[in-house]
Amino acid sequence: MQIGMIGLGKMGANMARRLMKGGHTCVGFDVNASNVDTFKAEGGLGASSLKELVETLQAPRIVWCMVPAGELTESTVTALSELLDEGDIIIDGGNSFYKDDARRAKTLAAQGIHYMDVGTSGGVWGVERGYCLMIGGSKPQVELLDPIFKTLAPGKGDIDPTPGRDNFTGTAEQGYLHCGPAGSGHFVKMIHNGIEYGMMMAYAEGFDIMRNADSENLPENLRYDLDLPEIAEVWRRGSVVGSWLLDLTAIALVENPDLSNYTGYVEDSGEGRWTVQAAIEEAVPAHVLTAALYSRFRSRQQNTFSDKMISAMRKQFGGHIEKTKPS
Amino acid sequence: MQIGMIGLGKMGANMARRLMKGGHTCVGFDVNASNVDTFKAEGGLGASSLKELVETLQAPRIVWCMVPAGELTESTVTALSELLDEGDIIIDGGNSFYKDDARRAKTLAAQGIHYMDVGTSGGVWGVERGYCLMIGGSKPQVELLDPIFKTLAPGKGDIDPTPGRDNFTGTAEQGYLHCGPAGSGHFVKMIHNGIEYGMMMAYAEGFDIMRNADSENLPENLRYDLDLPEIAEVWRRGSVVGSWLLDLTAIALVENPDLSNYTGYVEDSGEGRWTVQAAIEEAVPAHVLTAALYSRFRSRQQNTFSDKMISAMRKQFGGHIEKTKPS
Amino acid sequence: MQIGMIGLGKMGANMARRLMKGGHTCVGFDVNASNVDTFKAEGGLGASSLKELVETLQAPRIVWCMVPAGELTESTVTALSELLDEGDIIIDGGNSFYKDDARRAKTLAAQGIHYMDVGTSGGVWGVERGYCLMIGGSKPQVELLDPIFKTLAPGKGDIDPTPGRDNFTGTAEQGYLHCGPAGSGHFVKMIHNGIEYGMMMAYAEGFDIMRNADSENLPENLRYDLDLPEIAEVWRRGSVVGSWLLDLTAIALVENPDLSNYTGYVEDSGEGRWTVQAAIEEAVPAHVLTAALYSRFRSRQQNTFSDKMISAMRKQFGGHIEKTKPS
Amino acid sequence: MQIGMIGLGKMGANMARRLMKGGHTCVGFDVNASNVDTFKAEGGLGASSLKELVETLQAPRIVWCMVPAGELTESTVTALSELLDEGDIIIDGGNSFYKDDARRAKTLAAQGIHYMDVGTSGGVWGVERGYCLMIGGSKPQVELLDPIFKTLAPGKGDIDPTPGRDNFTGTAEQGYLHCGPAGSGHFVKMIHNGIEYGMMMAYAEGFDIMRNADSENLPENLRYDLDLPEIAEVWRRGSVVGSWLLDLTAIALVENPDLSNYTGYVEDSGEGRWTVQAAIEEAVPAHVLTAALYSRFRSRQQNTFSDKMISAMRKQFGGHIEKTKPS
Repeated sequence: MQIGMIGLGKMGANMARRLMKGGHTCVGFDVNASNVDTFKAEGGLGASSLKELVETLQAPRIVWCMVPAGELTESTVTALSELLDEGDIIIDGGNSFYKDDARRAKTLAAQGIHYMDVGTSGGVWGVERGYCLMIGGSKPQVELLDPIFKTLAPGKGDIDPTPGRDNFTGTAEQGYLHCGPAGSGHFVKMIHNGIEYGMMMAYAEGFDIMRNADSENLPENLRYDLDLPEIAEVWRRGSVVGSWLLDLTAIALVENPDLSNYTGYVEDSGEGRWTVQAAIEEAVPAHVLTAALYSRFRSRQQNTFSDKMISAMRKQFGGHIEKTKPS
Repeated sequence: MQIGMIGLGKMGANMARRLMKGGHTCVGFDVNASNVDTFKAEGGLGASSLKELVETLQAPRIVWCMVPAGELTESTVTALSELLDEGDIIIDGGNSFYKDDARRAKTLAAQGIHYMDVGTSGGVWGVERGYCLMIGGSKPQVELLDPIFKTLAPGKGDIDPTPGRDNFTGTAEQGYLHCGPAGSGHFVKMIHNGIEYGMMMAYAEGFDIMRNADSENLPENLRYDLDLPEIAEVWRRGSVVGSWLLDLTAIALVENPDLSNYTGYVEDSGEGRWTVQAAIEEAVPAHVLTAALYSRFRSRQQNTFSDKMISAMRKQFGGHIEKTKPS
Repeated sequence: MQIGMIGLGKMGANMARRLMKGGHTCVGFDVNASNVDTFKAEGGLGASSLKELVETLQAPRIVWCMVPAGELTESTVTALSELLDEGDIIIDGGNSFYKDDARRAKTLAAQGIHYMDVGTSGGVWGVERGYCLMIGGSKPQVELLDPIFKTLAPGKGDIDPTPGRDNFTGTAEQGYLHCGPAGSGHFVKMIHNGIEYGMMMAYAEGFDIMRNADSENLPENLRYDLDLPEIAEVWRRGSVVGSWLLDLTAIALVENPDLSNYTGYVEDSGEGRWTVQAAIEEAVPAHVLTAALYSRFRSRQQNTFSDKMISAMRKQFGGHIEKTKPS
Repeated sequence: MQIGMIGLGKMGANMARRLMKGGHTCVGFDVNASNVDTFKAEGGLGASSLKELVETLQAPRIVWCMVPAGELTESTVTALSELLDEGDIIIDGGNSFYKDDARRAKTLAAQGIHYMDVGTSGGVWGVERGYCLMIGGSKPQVELLDPIFKTLAPGKGDIDPTPGRDNFTGTAEQGYLHCGPAGSGHFVKMIHNGIEYGMMMAYAEGFDIMRNADSENLPENLRYDLDLPEIAEVWRRGSVVGSWLLDLTAIALVENPDLSNYTGYVEDSGEGRWTVQAAIEEAVPAHVLTAALYSRFRSRQQNTFSDKMISAMRKQFGGHIEKTKPS
């Protein structure tokens, strides 16, 4: 099929590559002209503007936006809405807030433009491994785009089939899924990322406890000097905690067993926050996912006001003077 | 090699089977005689008592205890210590508390008996998939038992090698690892289970939010009726949250999408609790692993005293009367 | 001064009583006519409609809304905006979301109507004890209304002055405070309630641990059958955890030591949720306030889907069958 | 009465002062001789050794240990057990672990020596305000020591009686309470401190959110520059969150509104940790108390290994490079 790709950064360019390798025709645009040049050098069709991209495509046009969520996606979708015609399709492949998707879909529907949100997981590995796609939108458009999704997705690969699915049809086993109406794709992707935060923190806490198992505060006969890269590796086979994140952890620990190349300043994107918001709106307890988010917040601060409040109270009631080194 | 297996329950019998299939000779004992009979019918050598088991083995005797952690393991090890000779080896393959291992190892060392603790992961799947082994003990004994561990472990299998490990030697890639002195095997297994609790809770919270995404409390245009079995399946390919636990979740959800065959009464074994204790002893924050543990505690109660306390305070200061149905 | 009070429920009627006792004139309206009748019987002026209330007041009119936050407050403010004149003042004394205040203030300012938000704490005790007032709005209006605030607030009372405040002026020691522009009053009240959730949960968890200190799972020589009403009482004098909430807890426990008159179904109003949202928007970790909120969510459910997910995974990997009674 | 006080530090000396002021005779000992000199200068009887202290007292001797919990208390109690006679009484007024109390009481009982544990709250304010006492031990000894407890405790003071207690007898309203057998006093004090941690953290989080309410990451029209000392003060009157800890917070914030005299390095004593242990042993969820403890752990670290783990995983799957300044 023919598809326009807006945003030729790390994710967008890789997805276009995978699509072209799968036999699709891609027209690429990026605000950074050099990205377009690179893309053309790799065999893609380049466009120097949104307008040119739209004009290059045949109706019904399919335009995939792979630009940062928030203002850039909003302005891109708005600009496209003024260039596209009835029956054309806009796909937001970024990490948009699902409520924005629902709103955009409604607005564009009034113009006869179809809007789809496709949560995309796979990171820098996706170009080879394939992208797990969580799709929100209307059924006819999802069906129309099936060849695109099939190419981007990982396919069945060598992953064991789930027992009991013999009579199941559908595309989930191929690594892509129509989740529901507009917004649902990003909703599911949001939860995916929320879970990701929680899993990462579970490993992080566990490895932190292992790393401190030789602390001088422990009795001498109960101190262990553990080899973290080897432990990550051994858990990759036959253990209950095996996962792709563990595979990546094993790589990182082999590269640098004490992770001294990292400061531990951890950013968060919107999905972790939105997951907590969704939990609150539904009144569902989410202790783990929230704690994982807060740990990221905390990692970016030193000497918080909250901690100073505790010190101040301790001094007031007990005359406790702060120590400045670990006790 | 020749090995004695004490405890022919779910785990012990399967391990013995895997060992025998790997060419080792197993002498089995269980307090339940019918388990011994079954074991003999499968080609194992049976013993009707610990004494007979010990007498059947050749020195240096290797005895693997696979009985429930706590009193039963303690009494079994004590009984063995009175039957075994200098140079013999006791292996505790259960989920003992690592401080108990350190104590037992010291006590037995005075008699010349070697003690090893082997944290064993793999559950009911281990007989075919192999067991991930985390080993604590002295190097000579670990080396002596290498054929046993190699047979029990999953081996390299078809899991991709970790980039950067080309120059690494050791057994971690085979799925077993000598972690350090006595206690360290169970320490690492304890953390493994602690992480497992956290990962499970991350999935559980995420799926709970997805299940409630069609709540009547949400705006009508932002409700999603999500197909959880399909979502679990699609995440198995190419996503960041892929894991063995997710594979199992996909199986469980295919069997029963609303999990109505479960009450949600979740038990915990010791490892989750000990992980929190270790975190506290080391002064390492472990919000996620602890919250996962507490959620299990909470699952076994209804109408907690804590909740009643909150209701009582609300009534006192605000005259709030409890509702009895969801608001 | 003369003031209109809209909403003569538990809070509004009590506030009007305190104002009248303090020499102010109150015109009251409530959608429930019998509340208006009661109010008139107590010496208030009654209005049978918003229109009548507005017509009864002299310009510049001061109208205090004490109706449930959300739709009712929104519609009341909108209705008032069509009845009031330039220079009049609307005060929202409910528990509105501070972002709604900021929006309303801006909208009304275009009409020349002043909007103030007054977070009000004190509950059913306020009529006698006075109400702690957190005020958002413009300085001239706050100054104009000072006699109203002074009457509603508790005043200095017999509470010890804070050392070091000798040279401080302002009204905080009287129990009311101009916090900043519109929205800030409810922002501070929101945080107040967030803290309240956290404090309540701290007590609740502590008392729950004490109540379970005689659990059969504990060693017999370390079980304590503690007298909770007496403990609450003894902590009221000289301890670090003394507070008004503890005073109320002591009352509740004297009434019913095992709180068997409560089910433990705990509701939450918006402030706890908004506090968490504010924390997330600011990237400030709020583990305690959030956990307190989630515990309320959890109290309203039994057998959560999350718990069933954990049970399902445990069965899949370990063959663990759920028990149905406490282990 | 006559009593020996061992440990004349901040707490012990103040308690002896309050006892002497109440008409009791105190014999003081401290390993630091200058503390004994000071004590004598204030009218106390000094002892230069435990032996001398014991010899100075009349049988049945009453010895109050006010030395740091742990090894020092253990060695002091052991030394005393060799000096005292049948019928004498040792009181541990420190913050001992309740399981140690239970053990010591049993050991000493074999010698006919009585052991009592008295959890003591009040900090540096106790000398004037009185100490809240939580007492574990046998009834006859508790009754014998009633005059001592009555003098140390705050008494009824001007605190309002709890409605409904008219027919209650007992000492709780005086600020001291016999909680149960040996260990129970420190158990209740442990929970008291656990609750204290939770309450402190509730305030700390709330004030941290208020302090960051003018963050540049927030929309300009929703930023508030809040006056924290004034807010702490206004909440002292009529609000739901009024407490002694809030009174102290108000003092600290008046002294230094941004708490720049604190680093936020927060220590923890044993009680917070033991509270979590007790919760786990009883299987009672304690999210809030635990989170408060973990926040203290976290305050003493910068750049945790856990945070680096998260960064490492993010780089592996998404190519995310750490930023070094807040985003």
